[in-house]
Amino acid sequence: MRRGLFISLEGGEGAGKSTQLKRLADRLKPRGEVVVTREPGGSPGAEAIRALLVTGAVDRWSPISETLLMYAARRDHIERTIEPALARGAIVLCDRFFDSTRAYQGAGGSAPAALIAALERDVVGDVRPDLTLILDMPVETGLARAAARGEGEARFEAKGLAFHQRLRAAFLAIAEAEPARCVLIDADAGIDEVEARIWRAVEARLA
Amino acid sequence: MRRGLFISLEGGEGAGKSTQLKRLADRLKPRGEVVVTREPGGSPGAEAIRALLVTGAVDRWSPISETLLMYAARRDHIERTIEPALARGAIVLCDRFFDSTRAYQGAGGSAPAALIAALERDVVGDVRPDLTLILDMPVETGLARAAARGEGEARFEAKGLAFHQRLRAAFLAIAEAEPARCVLIDADAGIDEVEARIWRAVEARLA
Ligand SMILES: Nc1ncnc2c1ncn2[C@@H]1O[C@H](COP(=O)(O)OP(=O)(O)O)[C@@H](O)[C@H]1O
Ligand SMILES: Nc1ncnc2c1ncn2[C@@H]1O[C@H](COP(=O)(O)OP(=O)(O)O)[C@@H](O)[C@H]1O
Ligand SMILES: [Mg+2]
Ligand SMILES: [Mg+2]
Repeated sequence: MRRGLFISLEGGEGAGKSTQLKRLADRLKPRGEVVVTREPGGSPGAEAIRALLVTGAVDRWSPISETLLMYAARRDHIERTIEPALARGAIVLCDRFFDSTRAYQGAGGSAPAALIAALERDVVGDVRPDLTLILDMPVETGLARAAARGEGEARFEAKGLAFHQRLRAAFLAIAEAEPARCVLIDADAGIDEVEARIWRAVEARLA
Repeated sequence: MRRGLFISLEGGEGAGKSTQLKRLADRLKPRGEVVVTREPGGSPGAEAIRALLVTGAVDRWSPISETLLMYAARRDHIERTIEPALARGAIVLCDRFFDSTRAYQGAGGSAPAALIAALERDVVGDVRPDLTLILDMPVETGLARAAARGEGEARFEAKGLAFHQRLRAAFLAIAEAEPARCVLIDADAGIDEVEARIWRAVEARLA
């Protein structure tokens, strides 16, 4: 059986990842099995770890502890959800993947780049996204959207403007450094327009 | 202020680590502050991670996920408990430390040695034990003791005899490879006798 396709969506808080993931899934369903999943989470073990990560005091975990929890969840998610789905030939749509660790814990939190690189090598291995859509927009716009949405899982939203500016810069740098994998999407537009931009990028990749 | 002393106790299930840790703490208390702690755990965050690790189905986590959870807990424990105590000049007695990851997840579970080495380098850094007491005894004896003790946290005890044989071999190999840090204690004896053996090793180090 042919191997499936692994697409990740990345970007800051409120960029529209979850909104667009649903729309992209609807567009892809006619082509076969689509698995919609998210990080941290996406498997029972990883969701239990997520609960430790996204709630509680803003300084509950240091950048290094946070990186390790993210990767523990990622490994479980890869083994129990992503890899089996790809082996079945499914399209996997994932709300955040390892670029978020580079951006949030690395650039944002200053976890050592050498540690993150070792984890990418030994924990992710070759289960890397075939395509990563990076949703970009001004930090203030995204945070305002996320705040208006209102949710219990606001630990990362609470990290302050300078943190979120470092995130945005990190995602832009990733898009520039890995153009074969990443497509930068200007997400500061209406939902339908962003959906159309994403679909153009995905169609180009499917062709 | 002088830096404290970091002593870890290692060994398989039922080797007598927790029993001996209490006795060693009593002997050391006249010399100053003694902090008795354990892994996984030893800080509020690490204890929350411990709850994910020591309960549930025996295959709940793969060796790599388990390694990362252990190290997430270890980092939190180092930052919030061990390092501050050493900075105060305390003696820290820790029930298991990184040798248990080498043995349980590495030798026992076959998590990659390169990953474990990267974690020791980037996560533990120089907060390494000054002295590690490795309590050794036949696997069957230790497992029988642990089973008789009876506790809820039996996920690792349930891993089967071959697993525990690999553990014992791994601890023996660590003692042989790092004689400056590790002292091998024959723990197949009465509690008082093992206590005396441990005390001789610790006194030699304190001198
Ligand atoms: N293009 C858009 N324009 C305006 N609001 C949007 C747009 N996309 C999403 N939103 C709204 O902004 C909030 C955050 O979107 P969401 O998809 O949850 O972002 P993310 O998953 O990236 O944090 C939601 O309330 C969503 O309805
Ligand atoms: N030297 C010994 N001889 C006999 N029983 C022992 C000895 N040391 C400990 N025990 C008992 O064996 C059980 C396991 O000891 P424990 O200290 O909990 O081991 P560990 O912490 O290494 O798993 C406990 O019930 C303890 O009372
Ligand atoms: Mg979202
Ligand atoms: Mg014990």
